[in-house]
Amino acid sequence: MSDIIRFGVSLSQKLLKSFDKIITKKGYASRSEAIRDLIREHLVDTEWEEEKKETVGTITLVYNHETRELGEKLTHEQHHHLDSIISTTHIHLDKHNCLEVLIARGKGKEIKAIADKLISTKGVKHGKLTMTTTGKELT
Amino acid sequence: MSDIIRFGVSLSQKLLKSFDKIITKKGYASRSEAIRDLIREHLVDTEWEEEKKETVGTITLVYNHETRELGEKLTHEQHHHLDSIISTTHIHLDKHNCLEVLIARGKGKEIKAIADKLISTKGVKHGKLTMTTTGKELT
Amino acid sequence: MSDIIRFGVSLSQKLLKSFDKIITKKGYASRSEAIRDLIREHLVDTEWEEEKKETVGTITLVYNHETRELGEKLTHEQHHHLDSIISTTHIHLDKHNCLEVLIARGKGKEIKAIADKLISTKGVKHGKLTMTTTGKELT
Amino acid sequence: MSDIIRFGVSLSQKLLKSFDKIITKKGYASRSEAIRDLIREHLVDTEWEEEKKETVGTITLVYNHETRELGEKLTHEQHHHLDSIISTTHIHLDKHNCLEVLIARGKGKEIKAIADKLISTKGVKHGKLTMTTTGKELT
Repeated sequence: MSDIIRFGVSLSQKLLKSFDKIITKKGYASRSEAIRDLIREHLVDTEWEEEKKETVGTITLVYNHETRELGEKLTHEQHHHLDSIISTTHIHLDKHNCLEVLIARGKGKEIKAIADKLISTKGVKHGKLTMTTTGKELT
Repeated sequence: MSDIIRFGVSLSQKLLKSFDKIITKKGYASRSEAIRDLIREHLVDTEWEEEKKETVGTITLVYNHETRELGEKLTHEQHHHLDSIISTTHIHLDKHNCLEVLIARGKGKEIKAIADKLISTKGVKHGKLTMTTTGKELT
Repeated sequence: MSDIIRFGVSLSQKLLKSFDKIITKKGYASRSEAIRDLIREHLVDTEWEEEKKETVGTITLVYNHETRELGEKLTHEQHHHLDSIISTTHIHLDKHNCLEVLIARGKGKEIKAIADKLISTKGVKHGKLTMTTTGKELT
Repeated sequence: MSDIIRFGVSLSQKLLKSFDKIITKKGYASRSEAIRDLIREHLVDTEWEEEKKETVGTITLVYNHETRELGEKLTHEQHHHLDSIISTTHIHLDKHNCLEVLIARGKGKEIKAIADKLISTKGVKHGKLTMTTTGKELT
């Protein structure tokens, strides 16, 4: 944390104004912190594009547990990817609906494939892959 | 499930070709299933735009637990939103990095505000809000 | 934390020796801290015996997800107790075995009934109810 | 599941009566299922006594997140045992109290040591180790 570098950024007044408005709304303490987050976000995207890098993602699924064999299908599929899926949190949303949040770690390509398979399963009402990071290359 | 309706969709051959290519890659069994997912996704987005509707989201955070008081700050902030945050899963990624996945339920606006506050906290390396749904209005 | 009270405890040298040995092994910094834990443990047990008090427990289940309809049965049963079960974490132990850890909140009697029902389900290899507390009456 | 063996058990009428009463209350469908659970429970205990066997446990902690540095201390300690702790679920019980449920996998001795260290930390109101199993040697 000792070697902080400062660099200048030039942009139009209009763009800066829009940016300031949004970061104030989001509660950032400074422009620098907001810019750092944009840079980190870009690095995370890159981590996911590189084939060999290990990364981390969450897969969110909403489904009706009463749909014939759906719960079993999803569990079986997850068991094929033991090495990637760290844990799954299941929330009973109501009498019918379940939320499952899987946390996966591995190559981006593999996590994407698992997410595609689960989300495209018939009966899954809503599914999303959230790409995050191991944090190793971010400071 | 008894009252299934069929309707036609007209589009250019080129657009259909691109669509077929991507849904095959994602493993969809049929165009209808893929179209249904697009429609549901659109409904989820709408659920989040409406002020009064209850919805569900996950907030993903990556940070270094050694950063001074960061862990405590994040925990304190979460305790201010007891009624919205159902559970938080914490994964120890390595000696330094933590992943936290919060599951929140409430009005979209409120979950967005919680996410903004947590993600913009200094020291959080990466953060994302994933908007999903209670599933109530999707079939 | 300002009103700390000290009181004396008399016991045989032999009993004290055994106690000191075990608390040293467990890493307690002082006898007082170990005694406080025993007292709290006793209060938690009492919390669970009282019919009307709200309390917190975890239910741990190990089962083979390939057992016919077992996963579905367990999920269905949990959905009958939406108001008590906060979240369920599912770990894929190996190709066959699953660990589920439910966190429940409610009256002790009700949580015990849910645990009994789930643990006694045919095909569940191992199950345990862990009684903990809301922490409200402990300092 | 094809090679089911039956064996007889002899015991006093009084003991059987007590046993039947308790298993009926717990909802077991048959004496055999209840006996199988007792045998499995015994095997799990043995798994935990053997030094070299891999096993699974949960560690439950209740504490006040406002206690100075307590949350950080617990997180730091957990990061020293990355290889054993699979995931930690955190529930915000109220403004002050937190529940953490850790899922750990490794040698029984090591999991016990982690549990002892965390539970004996000053400020932890209630802590428990629940010994369960990988399920590998149970059918």
